Amino acid sequence: MVLPSFTVPPRLLRTALLAVCTATGLFAAPPSVASPERPQPYRMSTRLTTGWEFYRSDLGGVWEALRSNALALDLPRWEAVALPHCVNASDAVDPDVPYYQGPAWYRTHLAIDNPYVSGRTLLHFEGAGQRSDVWIGDRHVGRHEDGYGEFTLDITDAVAAWKASKAFAAAHPDYHTPPGRVPLAVRTDNTRDLESIPSNLSDFNLYGGLYRHVNLVYVPAVSLDHVHVTPERQSDGSWRVGIKVRFRSASAPASAATQSTPVAPVASVDLRVQVLDPRGATVVDRHDTVPASGDWTDLPALTLKNGDLWSPSSPSLYRLHLTANTPGGESEIRERFGLRWFEFIRHGPFHLNGTRLLLRGTHRHEDHAGVAAAMTDAMMEEEMRLMKAMGANFIRLGHYPQSRRILELCDELGLLVWEEIPWCRGGLGGERFQRQARDSLARMIDQHHNHPSVIIWGLGNENDWPGDFSEFDQAKIRTFMRELHDLSHRLDPHRKTAIRRCDFCKDIVDVYSPSIWAGWYRGQFVEYRDVSEREMKKVNHFLHVEWGGDSHAGRHAEDPYAPLRDLSKAGAADERGLAFMRLGGNSRASKDGDWSETYICDLVDWHLKEQETMPWLTGTAMWPFKDFSTPLRFHNPVPFMNQKGAVERDLTPKEVFYVYQSYWTTQPMLHIYGHSWPVRWGRAGEKRWVKVYSNCAEAELFLNGQSLGTRRRVSSDFPAAGLRWEVPFVDGPNQLRAIGRAADGSVVTDEIALRYETRRWGAPARLELREVARSGDRIRVQASLVDANGVICLDSRAFVRFGHAGDGRLRDNLGTAKGSRFVQLATGAAEIDVFLPRGTALVSISSEGIPTAWLRLEQPASTSTP
Amino acid sequence: MVLPSFTVPPRLLRTALLAVCTATGLFAAPPSVASPERPQPYRMSTRLTTGWEFYRSDLGGVWEALRSNALALDLPRWEAVALPHCVNASDAVDPDVPYYQGPAWYRTHLAIDNPYVSGRTLLHFEGAGQRSDVWIGDRHVGRHEDGYGEFTLDITDAVAAWKASKAFAAAHPDYHTPPGRVPLAVRTDNTRDLESIPSNLSDFNLYGGLYRHVNLVYVPAVSLDHVHVTPERQSDGSWRVGIKVRFRSASAPASAATQSTPVAPVASVDLRVQVLDPRGATVVDRHDTVPASGDWTDLPALTLKNGDLWSPSSPSLYRLHLTANTPGGESEIRERFGLRWFEFIRHGPFHLNGTRLLLRGTHRHEDHAGVAAAMTDAMMEEEMRLMKAMGANFIRLGHYPQSRRILELCDELGLLVWEEIPWCRGGLGGERFQRQARDSLARMIDQHHNHPSVIIWGLGNENDWPGDFSEFDQAKIRTFMRELHDLSHRLDPHRKTAIRRCDFCKDIVDVYSPSIWAGWYRGQFVEYRDVSEREMKKVNHFLHVEWGGDSHAGRHAEDPYAPLRDLSKAGAADERGLAFMRLGGNSRASKDGDWSETYICDLVDWHLKEQETMPWLTGTAMWPFKDFSTPLRFHNPVPFMNQKGAVERDLTPKEVFYVYQSYWTTQPMLHIYGHSWPVRWGRAGEKRWVKVYSNCAEAELFLNGQSLGTRRRVSSDFPAAGLRWEVPFVDGPNQLRAIGRAADGSVVTDEIALRYETRRWGAPARLELREVARSGDRIRVQASLVDANGVICLDSRAFVRFGHAGDGRLRDNLGTAKGSRFVQLATGAAEIDVFLPRGTALVSISSEGIPTAWLRLEQPASTSTP
Repeated sequence: MVLPSFTVPPRLLRTALLAVCTATGLFAAPPSVASPERPQPYRMSTRLTTGWEFYRSDLGGVWEALRSNALALDLPRWEAVALPHCVNASDAVDPDVPYYQGPAWYRTHLAIDNPYVSGRTLLHFEGAGQRSDVWIGDRHVGRHEDGYGEFTLDITDAVAAWKASKAFAAAHPDYHTPPGRVPLAVRTDNTRDLESIPSNLSDFNLYGGLYRHVNLVYVPAVSLDHVHVTPERQSDGSWRVGIKVRFRSASAPASAATQSTPVAPVASVDLRVQVLDPRGATVVDRHDTVPASGDWTDLPALTLKNGDLWSPSSPSLYRLHLTANTPGGESEIRERFGLRWFEFIRHGPFHLNGTRLLLRGTHRHEDHAGVAAAMTDAMMEEEMRLMKAMGANFIRLGHYPQSRRILELCDELGLLVWEEIPWCRGGLGGERFQRQARDSLARMIDQHHNHPSVIIWGLGNENDWPGDFSEFDQAKIRTFMRELHDLSHRLDPHRKTAIRRCDFCKDIVDVYSPSIWAGWYRGQFVEYRDVSEREMKKVNHFLHVEWGGDSHAGRHAEDPYAPLRDLSKAGAADERGLAFMRLGGNSRASKDGDWSETYICDLVDWHLKEQETMPWLTGTAMWPFKDFSTPLRFHNPVPFMNQKGAVERDLTPKEVFYVYQSYWTTQPMLHIYGHSWPVRWGRAGEKRWVKVYSNCAEAELFLNGQSLGTRRRVSSDFPAAGLRWEVPFVDGPNQLRAIGRAADGSVVTDEIALRYETRRWGAPARLELREVARSGDRIRVQASLVDANGVICLDSRAFVRFGHAGDGRLRDNLGTAKGSRFVQLATGAAEIDVFLPRGTALVSISSEGIPTAWLRLEQPASTSTP
Repeated sequence: MVLPSFTVPPRLLRTALLAVCTATGLFAAPPSVASPERPQPYRMSTRLTTGWEFYRSDLGGVWEALRSNALALDLPRWEAVALPHCVNASDAVDPDVPYYQGPAWYRTHLAIDNPYVSGRTLLHFEGAGQRSDVWIGDRHVGRHEDGYGEFTLDITDAVAAWKASKAFAAAHPDYHTPPGRVPLAVRTDNTRDLESIPSNLSDFNLYGGLYRHVNLVYVPAVSLDHVHVTPERQSDGSWRVGIKVRFRSASAPASAATQSTPVAPVASVDLRVQVLDPRGATVVDRHDTVPASGDWTDLPALTLKNGDLWSPSSPSLYRLHLTANTPGGESEIRERFGLRWFEFIRHGPFHLNGTRLLLRGTHRHEDHAGVAAAMTDAMMEEEMRLMKAMGANFIRLGHYPQSRRILELCDELGLLVWEEIPWCRGGLGGERFQRQARDSLARMIDQHHNHPSVIIWGLGNENDWPGDFSEFDQAKIRTFMRELHDLSHRLDPHRKTAIRRCDFCKDIVDVYSPSIWAGWYRGQFVEYRDVSEREMKKVNHFLHVEWGGDSHAGRHAEDPYAPLRDLSKAGAADERGLAFMRLGGNSRASKDGDWSETYICDLVDWHLKEQETMPWLTGTAMWPFKDFSTPLRFHNPVPFMNQKGAVERDLTPKEVFYVYQSYWTTQPMLHIYGHSWPVRWGRAGEKRWVKVYSNCAEAELFLNGQSLGTRRRVSSDFPAAGLRWEVPFVDGPNQLRAIGRAADGSVVTDEIALRYETRRWGAPARLELREVARSGDRIRVQASLVDANGVICLDSRAFVRFGHAGDGRLRDNLGTAKGSRFVQLATGAAEIDVFLPRGTALVSISSEGIPTAWLRLEQPASTSTP
């Protein structure tokens, strides 16, 4: 089989790559279930996506959302939006203003017609940042203090009250809501708050808005609220599946795992219990009689013999359908579960279903170009599939509970999960702070209990980081950490607890990750193995999460080690103090290095090579899969972006993506380093290294049609596992082509074109700006910094600023190398798109000390957006 | 005497005009006091202007202002600012975003060294918007809910606590404040708030920030707090001057007129009382012994015989120096007062000091181009002097208590004052709302009691305007209005109460102003007299405040009545409902008119002519002196600007300024209409009217050197009091010159140049953009809209948008016709300044349906800002 390979732009490549992965079954799904049925917490649930209005500021009171536009003098000016929606969709990466941290309002009006006699009407929020208040009409129906968990509000009584009002019966000039509709208003608030988690010292944005789905739900007066499924492997290999259910009733409208007022059992309810195996065959169909209690009721356990195991390579999911029949009507929960067991061996490694599995992990934030936290389901699916295509089998959902769709995808795709609460940095606050942390843990365990992918409940991140309080007391932090650990085990005895980087708490949790950033925040990456082994021995269960380093997409270097000549071994690799900053402190690659993709590919290459021969290693998780926004890193090449991702904030893969793939995947792949490196440089006749990342047994490289020989892949042969060639480029255009041959005989190819520059460049003298591509109403412009002779200053890391006047606009504030109006050069150049449906646009390019250049763009006729 | 006249730009004109006014003694000052000594509430007071940092968002707590930059990870990014400072200096008139309404923080650190043993240290805030919280270190030392009054906080104990802290003694890495300094943090908050006054339905911005001065004050342990001086004319013509004093003491750190816990008298204090007459002669110097009480203590009254009367034409001020000698040290108050009496005759007119005075009034908001509410003392002085130069003798400080400097200037310049509390629009709120209104009234009366200029305490504006509450109950509003009226009379029996536009409360207050906008919001301006007389008869004391109309500076019309052909008489002139909006409703000049300066000059001319022959008229106040920002008026030619001013937001006079001057001043003046009208139009040979505004007895006009005859000024001869000519312009350039001869024989001249356009223009075809002036780093560009033949579309009112790329920036968000990047054309053109110290700027000009045009500007070398 010959797989196609590509010299197309990375964005297109990604799409093609996904097509390939899907077509070839790389994402193993249960054999007979093409797309597994998704869990459904309610039978009658409507997603509220359209018809919303938004105002990015506080109101003087809910009346301002209720009154008519005429009475309000058309103020504030509401903006029509669709959900999910993030307050900070654009401003989190605006280079010129801090991101908005404050209240915002959403309003809509609902047609509510509950079909159940005496039924309850609920609003189900899948998550909103960071604190939410909800009104029906002028009735405050609930407040939720937490940006990352789901919450459900019973609005039945408030709806009834509104329906009895004058404004519901007929059009009323004082009210904005049309007759027959019920007004809903939500105030979200991501104001800075020292007494709330996570800390604003965290290295990510604390987003605001209704950035996850909101659902309108109808249930009978008494209805199923939640189910916990707990499969336990028996000594004979069979599975005992524990099931417990909880009911919601009018007398207990809101529920939570931590609810303190248990509801007395009411009448018994007929409950139908159906279980379908991963092939869709019904294995259980029975009726139980259970009390309709707000407390948990255990159902008779099921026993499954010869169950299909769930694993990353075979993520088989069982389905559980519960149907409760009450006098008020039927309610239903559709849930899934999986059969798997795991073990952290003392001092490693990790076992899943009885055999070693090296955890090849990554991380993600809920953050994406153009939408920030308000990722659509399609974006989430694309991201998770791309992560799986990179070869990951594990993910730490740092640093907060994530969208239900993410957990579902981890189940479906086979990604083991460490999920954690947002107790991140700053220290330990008072009672409100601690209550929020406890509630967050209980809520996460309650809501995500049934996912077979989850193996670890994380209790915190970098809790050794002070700053939010005048006091920083390790003893108090230890006490609270122990309380959370005990709470986690009490609520879920089957998962482990873990934290990352809080040395003085490492004995409290089950699994501990220290800070190891070999070759980035300290020392050299060759120190990685020794440092890890030393850290591993300090705890019972070591798991290394967060490693890697930043790279500016499109920046490449002939010698990335040149600026690091003085970087010596450190004998340790933990990030310390303010080492993450780009100023001050000791020599380190993060400060002194060139942030090239070249260096990062080597760093990752080295780590992955070493991990292959560390038999005690449970696993690691590179940080993070995708570049993400952070308020802390203004000085980065793309301001406010943490650029450690394997892909950019819009999912465009960087070169290092293929380094991971070459170690982690089995589907044959091959990638010549440098797809985004159009110009290489050196003296005439000088040979340059070319690396090929591939999981094939051998590869052959061709320069301008001439074979430079075949190399065998040997993992221990750093870099590129031996797939590297010294290449005699000719001055000017060159073609590189590589062919990989896998052990199974299949063949993959790749090729790139580049120019070889033999002229040395002098001091930067001027900027050049040109149009390089046009597609409909999008025009790509490229700026280059050149010397007095017009030679591109290929190693310049100068910041440049794009300006715009006239028609259209820059496509900026995306947080990508080609989507920021203020950005560092990458290999002497920077690009941005101009959105220009018609007319004349003027684009300028400026850089400190260099004359400003400009370009006029014309779009003669109207075109449609692609 | 021949006074110079000018054909220079209005800005320069203004400066020159002030120079003339000052030089000629138009602003009468007490004969021997060139610059009257300003009141001083404290002997030791330091204005805190520099060394502040600002953050335009909320913090998570005061600790975020206290901690070191390192601990805070350099976040938030504080901005260095000087006071006074307004949060909304720029954004109130940004055409693209709503103005910020939310919390903001200020911080600084103080060197505090109180020289008084056991002395008290105070912070004296002259006003901050809209609600303020203040901390010394982490101690909350006070909260003030009111954007327009002064407040004083005793920080002695908090300072002592900080001085005892570890961070004061020596440098501490956790703290931002250097050792030896005391950290001060202020959180201002102008968040929308239905339960606070003024309403956000008000036609002005509710600004945030420390927009008035903040002072650090040292006083002895027991010190003078305040004095009230009350001169009362006796039947024999002498004056009895009542004086009462109030002390501040450690046991009563904060004081207010409404304070509810009177402090028991402490030891007696020696109080020296000195009075200086307007010529500086000491007329009283005595010692009293008074209790150092937080309650008022009456001193023995003074008697002044043959006192110098205070009046607009002779604003003579007495000085009062009080010096209290206590064991802890001396405290001092330097105050001023004036001798005048006034009477509102039933059904008019108004008498001051026993003779009729026609109140020629205006209004002002605290709002200015580039700084919003944070006007400097120099700006305030320039504005008030210009107002006086226009001929005003009265001002309503609508719609809130204003800066102490404004009241001082009213005293010094001779402007009678109606000052009012910000109960403006929206309805009546609950207890917090009502408390704020009561407190505001009590505070205003307490703080501004001694100003001889003040004659009226205003209780509200447009309290008939509903919208902020689901209830609007006239009876409850009446009850509260009566409470305020009674409170005002109790606190100050010597001033009148008044409101404007709340018909159902007009019987409650002493003086009432209905809404009369003849020829603007309703009907024709010729209805003005009849409507006024009818309204006058409905109340005992009628005073008409708020009249006029909007004009877009630089827009002129050959026939401003053309769009108003269908405008019929209305028989009434009150603004109703949403008539202020530019859409919907009946025909009215405000909606259908051209907003030209031409129409407004006629409207004002008519009103002033009529007012000269209304013997019963107390007076009026045109609305307002200066264009000001408002969130309600997005659709205006300068978005978000109320353009009814006689001068623009940067004090540039419009043509109507001279109409007022021609009626209200005695210093000879003359002004040819059309200084900002470069192109007039008509058929070849057709005659065009030219108007000259002058207070001279007669004037003569010259066209291109040829006399067109002399006209005598006759007030009743509308328009321009008969000083108008039909002029036969020649095609192309023309010169107009006018000479005015005053009754005293002095002569004033004026001249303008213009082009006469005889071509008719067709449909707008393109925009032209050109540089028209350059001064240092400022470049003025002008855009014109022309037809296919290049003829300027002189009557176009199209919106245009200036864009900018490259170096420098637009000087925009100023709220002026030449300081807004989105603005309507005025007489076919629009202008803006580009600030370009060096480099290349690209300026674009766009308008709906017209191809975008552009211009490149180059600034070869660095120049300094003028």
